[in-house]
Amino acid sequence: MPTLSNKGKSLPASPIRKLVPSAEAAKARGLEVLHLNIGQPDIPAPENALQVVRNQQLDLLPYGTSQGSLTYRKKLCNYYAKHQIYIEPDDIIVTTGASEALSFTLNVICDADEEIIIPEPFYANYNGFAAAANVKVVPVVSEFSDQFKLPHLETLEAHFTDKTKAILICNPSNPTGYLYTEEEIKILGQLAIKHDLFLIIDEVYREFIYGDEQHYSVLQNPKWSEHAIMIDSVSKRYSLCGARVGCMITKNKALIQTAMNFAHLRLSPATLALMASEAALDAPESYLEAVKKEYQKRRHTLITALEKIEGVAVSKPKGAFYCIAQLPVLDAEDFSRFLLEEFSDQNQTLMLAPAAGFYSTDHLGKNQVRIAFVLNEDKLVRAATILEKGLQAYQNS
Amino acid sequence: MPTLSNKGKSLPASPIRKLVPSAEAAKARGLEVLHLNIGQPDIPAPENALQVVRNQQLDLLPYGTSQGSLTYRKKLCNYYAKHQIYIEPDDIIVTTGASEALSFTLNVICDADEEIIIPEPFYANYNGFAAAANVKVVPVVSEFSDQFKLPHLETLEAHFTDKTKAILICNPSNPTGYLYTEEEIKILGQLAIKHDLFLIIDEVYREFIYGDEQHYSVLQNPKWSEHAIMIDSVSKRYSLCGARVGCMITKNKALIQTAMNFAHLRLSPATLALMASEAALDAPESYLEAVKKEYQKRRHTLITALEKIEGVAVSKPKGAFYCIAQLPVLDAEDFSRFLLEEFSDQNQTLMLAPAAGFYSTDHLGKNQVRIAFVLNEDKLVRAATILEKGLQAYQNS
Repeated sequence: MPTLSNKGKSLPASPIRKLVPSAEAAKARGLEVLHLNIGQPDIPAPENALQVVRNQQLDLLPYGTSQGSLTYRKKLCNYYAKHQIYIEPDDIIVTTGASEALSFTLNVICDADEEIIIPEPFYANYNGFAAAANVKVVPVVSEFSDQFKLPHLETLEAHFTDKTKAILICNPSNPTGYLYTEEEIKILGQLAIKHDLFLIIDEVYREFIYGDEQHYSVLQNPKWSEHAIMIDSVSKRYSLCGARVGCMITKNKALIQTAMNFAHLRLSPATLALMASEAALDAPESYLEAVKKEYQKRRHTLITALEKIEGVAVSKPKGAFYCIAQLPVLDAEDFSRFLLEEFSDQNQTLMLAPAAGFYSTDHLGKNQVRIAFVLNEDKLVRAATILEKGLQAYQNS
Repeated sequence: MPTLSNKGKSLPASPIRKLVPSAEAAKARGLEVLHLNIGQPDIPAPENALQVVRNQQLDLLPYGTSQGSLTYRKKLCNYYAKHQIYIEPDDIIVTTGASEALSFTLNVICDADEEIIIPEPFYANYNGFAAAANVKVVPVVSEFSDQFKLPHLETLEAHFTDKTKAILICNPSNPTGYLYTEEEIKILGQLAIKHDLFLIIDEVYREFIYGDEQHYSVLQNPKWSEHAIMIDSVSKRYSLCGARVGCMITKNKALIQTAMNFAHLRLSPATLALMASEAALDAPESYLEAVKKEYQKRRHTLITALEKIEGVAVSKPKGAFYCIAQLPVLDAEDFSRFLLEEFSDQNQTLMLAPAAGFYSTDHLGKNQVRIAFVLNEDKLVRAATILEKGLQAYQNS
């Protein structure tokens, strides 16, 4: 049989995938599994998003334009203007999820073996997109004890080489929930200018911010606009994960034009999904306010419950819907497997995302897990109880 | 400003894109443009495909499974069984269009600088997918005078190097309409075994066959099943181009498993589109029969009309909905531009796809165009008249 590509065989997998057989084992044991491991919102999408798809009278599905329809891009501009982000429709390419936006971005800015700097822990699929584009991820550690704030300027600069092409962050962050401050974004913007790098910020959780701090977008400051690329998606914002509609936005004309080469190649984003996404933008402001309020309550409930568990320490997320918890175990992956394969309480158990997979450096995050608060409050309280009992059982096992 | 990737800047564009400004110029002149240049079906999709989307009562769009839902893959197996293609759900990965299926395939089988053999002319985006995966396309000429049949075995073998990883064809072919025979597929299968290569066949036009010949799928013969990869899509078959739902199918377990690394990375195909695609598979057999009959009539009408034009020679397509026409001009791209920018007849003109862009070798196909017959018969007759008058005007200009 012919050999397969080394690239394909070594493509890094998401840290959650390793636990899928264990989750299947839990189901085979007849257990209900509470999923704290995934960021799939359970809150209804804006009513009109799915209604417009019900109302369509299409008799076939034509290709759309590769860049995404102009009407959708215009509406996006209006949406961003409410966030003090002023862009034009031609600054946007609509993509098949934030996934494709990131894939386009890396392929457009990096040739093989070039490097991107990412503070770790980071969204594990960044590893995969980088590997698929033959790009090397250079991680810089951010600390649990600092709530995962931006590493020091000197620490970042110490990782730059002549192959460095970009800095990538997620703000607010999956997996930490950290909200980078305006000051931190300005440090990154200055760095991008000084070292002639791109600054890529994944802002898919922009709306999910729980304190008084404001989100500061990478596109808000014209100084580094030639360097800035924003990644976005309707998945989390409007509970439309299955739409697979995202976008990449930049004021850099050469970059957009080059990214369009990739966009033309895959023809167009999906027609029905774009229709739903466009309708979602018409949702009243009360929609996102209510969603945010719900996650705010869940965050409070989860953090309060976790903090009561002996030996557990939690990062306090300012945004997104994740936190990192330190557990009193040596190997959180082994503990997560134990919960699924060996433990149960009242016929239920938990699935966690071991945080080691969100670090690129080998030995880090071993005693940490990422917890998503996309379950209702009752389930979150119940999940914390199962975690507490599970930890006891694990320590006694 | 930071530099962009060489890969991005040099990504080959589709031959049609070059003419887009000319088409805009035609519209600016107030002309109606008859599009013979694109393969976007105008025939209604199966009624149920869009009805099921109208009937859905979802309140949010969740991620699907990365491989595509099991129910859809099971239905696909039933569909293929009717074509003597016997596969299991686990042999299939549902993709975002045939585009993604091809992209996964190339990335899974080739590392940088490896080669794939493609008879030319071929679907121009194969160039783009290869370039995006850092793979080198090695074209082997097939001849207009032979109706674009498979090049001789010795000619193919003469192009093999130690970097050759696969042979890729489209059957029936876009852009030629040629239907590779069972014998030709067997030659390719034997070649794949002998030289330890993959054999990738893009079968998206399987249903569009107009004579008595039967389509012979790459998956019909177990001898080379470890080598065979089939690319498919609902776009053309069910007029669902905008669904962006395709698939890759192979019996090679290691290949599927490695391709799943890429599938997991982009999370899942689009939920609503998958729903429509699954419903399309329930269409009665009479649906595809009627579609085929309609294209059969169009083909007859178009070919008859083209053959009447002095100096024009046409390949007789046995499948798909394209033919290659040789025009009495030196440079069909220049002529195509002339039609859009300088010519009109009764306030109408034509857009053609210059065939040179479907050849990888520089000087080939200069006097050829690809013509898609996805307009109704009246429009096709009218298009032939415009072509005839346009040729006269061009020769006199």
